[in-house]
Amino acid sequence: MTESTPPTPPPGTRRPGGRTARTRAAVRDAVLSGLADHGYPGLTVEYVADHSGVHKTTLYRRWGGLEGLVADALDLAGEDTWTPPDTGSLEGDLRALAHEVVDAFTDDAAAAAPTAFIGAAFQSERAEQALRAFYAERFTRCEAVVARAVARGEATADVDAGALVRAVSAPLMLRLFITREPIDGELADQSAAAALAATRAGAFTRR
Amino acid sequence: MTESTPPTPPPGTRRPGGRTARTRAAVRDAVLSGLADHGYPGLTVEYVADHSGVHKTTLYRRWGGLEGLVADALDLAGEDTWTPPDTGSLEGDLRALAHEVVDAFTDDAAAAAPTAFIGAAFQSERAEQALRAFYAERFTRCEAVVARAVARGEATADVDAGALVRAVSAPLMLRLFITREPIDGELADQSAAAALAATRAGAFTRR
Repeated sequence: MTESTPPTPPPGTRRPGGRTARTRAAVRDAVLSGLADHGYPGLTVEYVADHSGVHKTTLYRRWGGLEGLVADALDLAGEDTWTPPDTGSLEGDLRALAHEVVDAFTDDAAAAAPTAFIGAAFQSERAEQALRAFYAERFTRCEAVVARAVARGEATADVDAGALVRAVSAPLMLRLFITREPIDGELADQSAAAALAATRAGAFTRR
Repeated sequence: MTESTPPTPPPGTRRPGGRTARTRAAVRDAVLSGLADHGYPGLTVEYVADHSGVHKTTLYRRWGGLEGLVADALDLAGEDTWTPPDTGSLEGDLRALAHEVVDAFTDDAAAAAPTAFIGAAFQSERAEQALRAFYAERFTRCEAVVARAVARGEATADVDAGALVRAVSAPLMLRLFITREPIDGELADQSAAAALAATRAGAFTRR
């Protein structure tokens, strides 16, 4: 998973847990499929109840309502085991990160839920907060590629790792969700190359 | 205006026109204030009728409904006279462009309508198409800064001007609408510096 792939943990990565964890996961899965099918606010608590087998009154009691369900699904999505690519070079890692974004968002099924989460943040403050927390944690994981590059002497220790990893996916996310333009592997390579060149030129060096 | 400032033409830039143009502008203004107040889909045809003084039946007949109203407001927004900054250097122009984005979106009143347009595109295909057309035209205007840089010998003629100008605002828009992080002038400078460094390193050179 990249910082922008569907926030559904791959099989086997779910935290161990009992009935509560299973219920939460079932509800999360229903929220994701609902967001994929109907987007936000097309999603309803009724849909989540029908698709999770959890009673509506339980959903309202434990999640408060739709906003709480969406926020919790995003929180749970952050509890996966994804780690950034480790290709042995900063250039390889940045290119692999960019391609993961393209691969995730050019697969309609994979893109549906994360796209709906990003859209939900325009209408729900709780979704916005959950999205902010999700990406903050996701990009923090991405900073490992910069730490390895520093250790290899490919970047200086004073590089702004957060800015660098965000710069890789920014041109892709801009086209996906703002300018609504197509993205492809060539654009992924260009984004990675631009971020790498900017890093080498010191554009991300902390003042 | 930047490619991302509120799509309201500054005073005096409205196309000359008779009653039809005035009606369209009044309806556009009502849509913008409605989006600013309620976002999308909080906006209703009733609201537009009340705030434009144009009868609901006329709105439905001429615009088809809410999606048509939003799309037309965005189309009309593209009919302004904004041109990109011309500071005399590519570095100055890119920095000025980035700062225009920050200035526009850190002003809550100015940011409300464009933010709502971007959010509407997640729910309305017509809004998505209108947004795509708006930004395509907006970024085409921005390419003038690259053409001037080429003329001054600051960039080669084979630079991907569209990719370069998008790279300047991409890190800002990512934080505004995806990761939901704050942006400031320092980030604007960093984005412009990164785009400039990538350009000088040939990262935006067409293959």
